[in-house]
Amino acid sequence: MIGFKAVGIGPGSTFAMVAAESLLLTDLYQLNMMQAYEANGLTGTAVFEFFVRKLPPRRSFLMAAGLEQIVAFLEAARFGPADLDYLQHSGRFSAVFLERLAAFRFTGDVEAMPEGTVFFADEPIVRVVAPLAQAQLIETRLINLAHFQTVIASKAARMVLAAPGKRLIDFGLRRAHGAEAGLLAARASYLAGFAGTATTLAAPTFDIPVYGTMAHSFVQAHDDEEAAFVDFARARPEGLVLLIDTYDTERAAATVVRLAPKVRREGIAIQGVRLDSGDLADHAFKVRRILDEGGLDDVTIFASGGIDEDRIFALERRGAPIAGYGVGTSLVTSSDAPALDCAYKLQEYAGIARRKRSEGKATWPGRKQVWRRYDADGRMAGDIVSHADDPQPGTTLLEPAMRAGRRVAGFASLARARAHAARELGRLPAALTRLEPAPYPVAIAPALRRLAAACDRRLAAGPP
Amino acid sequence: MIGFKAVGIGPGSTFAMVAAESLLLTDLYQLNMMQAYEANGLTGTAVFEFFVRKLPPRRSFLMAAGLEQIVAFLEAARFGPADLDYLQHSGRFSAVFLERLAAFRFTGDVEAMPEGTVFFADEPIVRVVAPLAQAQLIETRLINLAHFQTVIASKAARMVLAAPGKRLIDFGLRRAHGAEAGLLAARASYLAGFAGTATTLAAPTFDIPVYGTMAHSFVQAHDDEEAAFVDFARARPEGLVLLIDTYDTERAAATVVRLAPKVRREGIAIQGVRLDSGDLADHAFKVRRILDEGGLDDVTIFASGGIDEDRIFALERRGAPIAGYGVGTSLVTSSDAPALDCAYKLQEYAGIARRKRSEGKATWPGRKQVWRRYDADGRMAGDIVSHADDPQPGTTLLEPAMRAGRRVAGFASLARARAHAARELGRLPAALTRLEPAPYPVAIAPALRRLAAACDRRLAAGPP
Repeated sequence: MIGFKAVGIGPGSTFAMVAAESLLLTDLYQLNMMQAYEANGLTGTAVFEFFVRKLPPRRSFLMAAGLEQIVAFLEAARFGPADLDYLQHSGRFSAVFLERLAAFRFTGDVEAMPEGTVFFADEPIVRVVAPLAQAQLIETRLINLAHFQTVIASKAARMVLAAPGKRLIDFGLRRAHGAEAGLLAARASYLAGFAGTATTLAAPTFDIPVYGTMAHSFVQAHDDEEAAFVDFARARPEGLVLLIDTYDTERAAATVVRLAPKVRREGIAIQGVRLDSGDLADHAFKVRRILDEGGLDDVTIFASGGIDEDRIFALERRGAPIAGYGVGTSLVTSSDAPALDCAYKLQEYAGIARRKRSEGKATWPGRKQVWRRYDADGRMAGDIVSHADDPQPGTTLLEPAMRAGRRVAGFASLARARAHAARELGRLPAALTRLEPAPYPVAIAPALRRLAAACDRRLAAGPP
Repeated sequence: MIGFKAVGIGPGSTFAMVAAESLLLTDLYQLNMMQAYEANGLTGTAVFEFFVRKLPPRRSFLMAAGLEQIVAFLEAARFGPADLDYLQHSGRFSAVFLERLAAFRFTGDVEAMPEGTVFFADEPIVRVVAPLAQAQLIETRLINLAHFQTVIASKAARMVLAAPGKRLIDFGLRRAHGAEAGLLAARASYLAGFAGTATTLAAPTFDIPVYGTMAHSFVQAHDDEEAAFVDFARARPEGLVLLIDTYDTERAAATVVRLAPKVRREGIAIQGVRLDSGDLADHAFKVRRILDEGGLDDVTIFASGGIDEDRIFALERRGAPIAGYGVGTSLVTSSDAPALDCAYKLQEYAGIARRKRSEGKATWPGRKQVWRRYDADGRMAGDIVSHADDPQPGTTLLEPAMRAGRRVAGFASLARARAHAARELGRLPAALTRLEPAPYPVAIAPALRRLAAACDRRLAAGPP
């Protein structure tokens, strides 16, 4: 990675640095509450936790992602001059409060599941311990960052499980929800096991392998498909893949066979062909035969166009001779579950465990830890959610990520997160490796249930 | 709108300027194809059109949005030094080509439907006429920008239709797909008729009204709900709304009645209460009675929590006494249809109409226009898609947006787009104002069908 400064959402991104730094990227109510906290002397330490209330219908597990961006955001978060200017002119805030905002720095501690960790409902993924106003202000962007990449990594992991050994490439930037979504989807899918992305900017930003083939427009701009293939080949793109479905897939495959020796004499090797429409399995079998009979058995078939984990699974089950898949819309929008029912909730303030009791949205109080046991084969056997000070059998999943506003030494890189994700997928119980949902045991420790009951009794009794 | 320079995705946003300007925010294949176009002398004029192939199952119409960001992107699009540095070190591109990239400027023309225009499948929304390599390169980000805001405006329009006269506020930043998605969702929903957003940065960026209430954490951080309400009121936030569902909604409503006179003596007026859980209609009726009996009939009820257009419709049909809705996840992810089946396709090159024929994805060739007729009541009565040079009865929907790389004089502002959107919703046929899908007649002009057949014959005949 060449000549890029490490800032913002990842090394090399000038892009999201500005976004991550402007603290106006928050809900207005955070600023209103912050002013009220300051005015009323609520300066104690707060513990907030981010967790998912309920998995989407077709998910058996989720994969944590986005922590690196959260940490970068918290380290860099400032109110810039333009931000303060806007807030002052809005007339909503006092001069004293605006001065405090000008000096804002996040000074808290963060514990979190390392990126790539598999997790389940009710388990805290990120815990923030900080002065109340700080922990409150950062809520919106923290959720925004933790939620999206977790959505995408969890979706991508399903595709990885459905296509063992195949090359998966993110093709989704165009239908991602904006620029940041496209970039972060490239990152989250790579983390979960994709081979790379088509999004060029993801390479200098995150050091992710970037791949490119060709589009129909290239073929259409030529009066003749073979001329288009030759023109494209002669520009010698790295990893030459020809798109063969613009007019007639099998006819184009025959064209590839005809021109391969011609370009080979110029030292150009065709590495693959891409199918993008129709019955992909049917075309793949036919094209494979045409290529093989033409002596091109080293040319691989790559498939794209409306791909999701179900289509991948079906193609693999039919044994379609496809070496890799380009996945766009279904990946970057997580089309069957574009959002998670997640929350970042106050669990403790000023040393007292707190609990929200809104109907259908009650939370487990206090600062918590997740303990995971494994069976003799090293597969996940069950989790327990307990108070952080109440050890349980198994391994703890939440680890230190920040201390006093700075990332801890040895904070994981994307490469390590990706390796961790692969290990985690390898540890899934067999039932959870399939696309249809299966249960996994997550227990609430008895002492945590007693703490929740104690919170309820305290509330019922009224203020001390 | 104070002291912000007009750049990037909207006036005042330093945020997305960088994103909009880096041309690495594109698929790698665009660069590969561009290099091949240049190497092979394909420097003719191309016509690309952006359109939607098929509406999502529960949409009767879509609403065009994102054009302002597209125009800003095309005006600002450059390869910066860091971009060029990366491309050079990647080893994929020739020195000659990199020099051409360094000088890249978009010099083309753009015609488009004004933002806020209602449109249907097969109708071009944006037409780009530019040198082939330019029109190719910008594809990815153009789709990225046009697609997302169109998705959101179309979803928001359904909510606006379901809640006539009610105040709708975007609450979605936290579950939006990244920062840009949150900001652009605030813009697109405001364009479609929302009253404003909770996203603070949307105010200086787009001059959108911003609203804020309070969160459960504020209540939880206090030992007592009434103390929390008084503390919050005394900070005198603009538009004081108290959140009353943290523990027991009706008990909290009674608390509001009790403390209202106390804070009124300090010159503080409670303007509303917010419900965020449980059966919202049931709570709204009960809370309304408690407030009215307590003499607080001027305090309005605002509802949030899992709101979408179907829930709004159901609440309105029950006559729930709710003055406004905060809508988050379902809006900013367009949860039932997070993506559109849309494309940006080459329709003409070097003066010759072109047509892709891939299975299920064939396109109508040539540069096109959409003509709309209205009935005697001024409601939309039917559209015709024709070649741009083949006039039809009705009004044309595509208008000039850019000439030679610059926006045309009088390019519409967000305020004008919002007014246009409101007019468009007022012109919908009655059946299209309901949530369940209904058909609308879009005809393909006979000459356009003949042109498509001629393209097919030309392809069948092979190269000239």
